[in-house]
Amino acid sequence: MKTFRQELVFNLPARRGFVNITAKVAECVRESGVREGLVLVNSMHISSSIFINDHEGGLLEDWERWLEKLAPEKPHDQYRHNETGEDNADAHLKRTIMGRETVVAITEGKLDFGPWEQIFYGEFDGLRRKRVLVKIIGE
Amino acid sequence: MKTFRQELVFNLPARRGFVNITAKVAECVRESGVREGLVLVNSMHISSSIFINDHEGGLLEDWERWLEKLAPEKPHDQYRHNETGEDNADAHLKRTIMGRETVVAITEGKLDFGPWEQIFYGEFDGLRRKRVLVKIIGE
Amino acid sequence: MKTFRQELVFNLPARRGFVNITAKVAECVRESGVREGLVLVNSMHISSSIFINDHEGGLLEDWERWLEKLAPEKPHDQYRHNETGEDNADAHLKRTIMGRETVVAITEGKLDFGPWEQIFYGEFDGLRRKRVLVKIIGE
Repeated sequence: MKTFRQELVFNLPARRGFVNITAKVAECVRESGVREGLVLVNSMHISSSIFINDHEGGLLEDWERWLEKLAPEKPHDQYRHNETGEDNADAHLKRTIMGRETVVAITEGKLDFGPWEQIFYGEFDGLRRKRVLVKIIGE
Repeated sequence: MKTFRQELVFNLPARRGFVNITAKVAECVRESGVREGLVLVNSMHISSSIFINDHEGGLLEDWERWLEKLAPEKPHDQYRHNETGEDNADAHLKRTIMGRETVVAITEGKLDFGPWEQIFYGEFDGLRRKRVLVKIIGE
Repeated sequence: MKTFRQELVFNLPARRGFVNITAKVAECVRESGVREGLVLVNSMHISSSIFINDHEGGLLEDWERWLEKLAPEKPHDQYRHNETGEDNADAHLKRTIMGRETVVAITEGKLDFGPWEQIFYGEFDGLRRKRVLVKIIGE
């Protein structure tokens, strides 16, 4: 069995944003030399997400508005968590909806994807350095 | 290490619906010959889901109504994504809540499930051919 | 390849609650002897969750209030599922938002976590015995 580990680093210039990281994960798969296996991609932070969906600009705007409706950032004092001095309770809730991680099959040395599947990093509390873990097992 | 890959194909006669695919996944596990390992089951499309829950007809109706409340299909022009000519932005959001994938343990050659766990395919933009990936690793 | 399986048992004294199970999962990883691999942690019941987030008391209260807003328990008769004699349809929906499972990387014999990641069991229909599965594969 082969294993491979790499961290991807992000530092978004806004509180919220989405980054397509498919090419970076595909590069990890190539480097790993794994032909058949699984790749786990997860945010190492609890206020950001990894998820798979379509890369279409309008849809990314829809997510921003939809998440603000389901788990609004403001007023900050609507959340008990923000009594600790934080202002990011909404980021924890938004990340819950979008998910912490994805697991993707590796087949014949490549991400085994449908035609529109793309891997995204979703930031909900940015303006600082955050990490994503890529872990591969297989052979 | 053994690996196994199979695609399941669905073509639902309605925009939305749920299909219990537990028996199909269990058949993949048998065919794979894997006794101890993991099975990944994921939609290969970004407007449908794989999730695990109870097979009870009333609950499936509750999901339909609940998802329509959280991410309503209409009016179609409430979503930027639909400006591309699509009408399925809501399907992307519904699939986000229900999830893209599940990972299930294989123990002694079988799906290692609690008493009520069943695997479902959730369709949110049907009336066409869609695929689900089953990938197994183990030994 | 090594594999390891263990069930964790919970019996919460209330309908809903959260339990930090990180130490129990870490103990499974130690017992397994796996140095590089993946650990799957999933609820074996369809009215409870496994998820990863921050261990902060205010945030746990925020979740309770937020989930009650998105998928309220009462009135029980708003859900078709409850016509079966159950009163826990809301638990199925809450668990859907919070997730059934998590997959965590094992690196150098330990849970490969960011600084704040903790694994939680989320109970939405307690007052009875429930099980969580820990399955490890790797070497």
